[in-house]
Amino acid sequence: MRIVVLTGGIGGARFLVGVRAYARSVGAEVTAVVNVGDDVRMHGLQICPDLDSVMYTLGGAADPERGWGRVGETWVVKEELARYGAEPSWFGLGDKDTATHLVRTTMLNAGYPLSAVTAALCERWQPGLAMLPATDDRLETHVVVDVDGERKAIHFQEWWVRYRGDVPTHRFVFVGADAAKPAAGVLEAIGSADVVLIAPSNPVVSIAPILAVSALREAVAGGPAPVVGVSPIIGGSPVRGMADRCLATLGVEVSAAGVGRLYGARADGGLLDGWLVDDTDAGAAVPGVTTRAVPLWMTDETATAKMVEEAIDLAGPRTGDAERRGEAE
Amino acid sequence: MRIVVLTGGIGGARFLVGVRAYARSVGAEVTAVVNVGDDVRMHGLQICPDLDSVMYTLGGAADPERGWGRVGETWVVKEELARYGAEPSWFGLGDKDTATHLVRTTMLNAGYPLSAVTAALCERWQPGLAMLPATDDRLETHVVVDVDGERKAIHFQEWWVRYRGDVPTHRFVFVGADAAKPAAGVLEAIGSADVVLIAPSNPVVSIAPILAVSALREAVAGGPAPVVGVSPIIGGSPVRGMADRCLATLGVEVSAAGVGRLYGARADGGLLDGWLVDDTDAGAAVPGVTTRAVPLWMTDETATAKMVEEAIDLAGPRTGDAERRGEAE
Repeated sequence: MRIVVLTGGIGGARFLVGVRAYARSVGAEVTAVVNVGDDVRMHGLQICPDLDSVMYTLGGAADPERGWGRVGETWVVKEELARYGAEPSWFGLGDKDTATHLVRTTMLNAGYPLSAVTAALCERWQPGLAMLPATDDRLETHVVVDVDGERKAIHFQEWWVRYRGDVPTHRFVFVGADAAKPAAGVLEAIGSADVVLIAPSNPVVSIAPILAVSALREAVAGGPAPVVGVSPIIGGSPVRGMADRCLATLGVEVSAAGVGRLYGARADGGLLDGWLVDDTDAGAAVPGVTTRAVPLWMTDETATAKMVEEAIDLAGPRTGDAERRGEAE
Repeated sequence: MRIVVLTGGIGGARFLVGVRAYARSVGAEVTAVVNVGDDVRMHGLQICPDLDSVMYTLGGAADPERGWGRVGETWVVKEELARYGAEPSWFGLGDKDTATHLVRTTMLNAGYPLSAVTAALCERWQPGLAMLPATDDRLETHVVVDVDGERKAIHFQEWWVRYRGDVPTHRFVFVGADAAKPAAGVLEAIGSADVVLIAPSNPVVSIAPILAVSALREAVAGGPAPVVGVSPIIGGSPVRGMADRCLATLGVEVSAAGVGRLYGARADGGLLDGWLVDDTDAGAAVPGVTTRAVPLWMTDETATAKMVEEAIDLAGPRTGDAERRGEAE
């Protein structure tokens, strides 16, 4: 069996730990297609927060408390940059992380595509699955906000880290998406997948930038594999992060059903065949999509692998056989 | 009074501490013209060892034990780069140092010349004198060596740090010197100087790359200011570093007289009006150059300032008045 997972960073990384465990138990191959919309060049370093979160988490080197970055991280470089007055100073640039960024930036500047760079970095981390950026092209999520009485577009990282999303926010723009092509290997992975899973990542700023690569979205929506999403909302709140702020910006209800409808049914030009929600949200209906309610808290690897098993089960063998289908509105 | 000092890194930095002390006592202005031949790009970072040694030393942040780099330095980035297998792994890239290189590289990549970048970095360090790179252009010292039975040119840093100069060495090449122009401000400083001092730095790999910028050499050799050098050799040995290995490669005698003759008298197309040697080397004769023997050990700021005072005194008011002139051969 071949599993493709569309995923963002921290929550998606935790989900992937469960996918990997499940895949090992059944002998499946996994390809993670990772969001690059968060990527940003700071202090001359190309920083890929979601790729790094996935890589460090699967490599057993992520900080379990903070959720992002490396365990045992130190902050000398960041403190020194601040002493020079170098901006931005609000970004959490750890020393260990800096080495990752240096290797990546050096390879990118030498002409290697991000997918090849990611593979090279993964030789150290051995994540146990294939990691691909959604695209090798520049694709950055910018956010149109009002700051100091002025409307302007800022990088997603500035919105997320500096402002904690707490500024008047109008919309998200995926700069470069129009021209971006899927990274090497992405279309092949999706085309040969037995199932495509959408991780319980932020739908607006983690999954949407992946799908903003039009050829990638078409490969998923029009491909042979059933597509099952896992809700990032449990009982009206995001499992982690600021999906609520992001969904509010789009005018989307912060609920399992709201996000399911945002993705939409394949039959209606959307993405989903199946939608996995938490027991709490058992009543969530997504028109044209088979939903199933199971425990969605990723408390540990076993619980998460069980979730993944439910998602895979929901996908097939024939998606049409699945038990409950949301009513069309 | 205006003093210009041609200088390399560690030894030159220590000398400059004395120059600064002397200059403060007499109200003089100092411009240090610093070697860039050691500069190298590693892991995407533009590293300027001599500029940094001078900056950190004058800024009170140099490591007094190691001689180079920052006091209280940590090595997380370097260890992590090694874990990735990133080469070169033999270079001492400290975490604090990395921040300096990030700021520098970012500014260079944005188009600022090295002289402007150096001035920006010095806003933090307040070295108490003007620091200028010899050139804003690329000028790198490479070394023609035999390694593993093969003759090849390696970067000076590889020769110095990786091999400790302990490989068959044929010659030093200043790559880019033909096209390099003096950095902004250098010719003005030399042209308006009352005296030009040559620090007791390595003549072959610290001072020669500066003078390899032909317009700079002409400004010194043909300029109005008297030129006084300070011997880096005391009693047949370098005060520090590997000047002996370098001089041997050129077939130059490792002595105060040998280095003085290497620089040569201005009247003979060389550089020097005066040559300050250690008491031990009181007999050193350099044809056409006034020599003076004084204690040259830079044991502390006061001793070094006293050396500088002697050098300045040797320079004028009329160089022709100086007490002892080497015999022409």
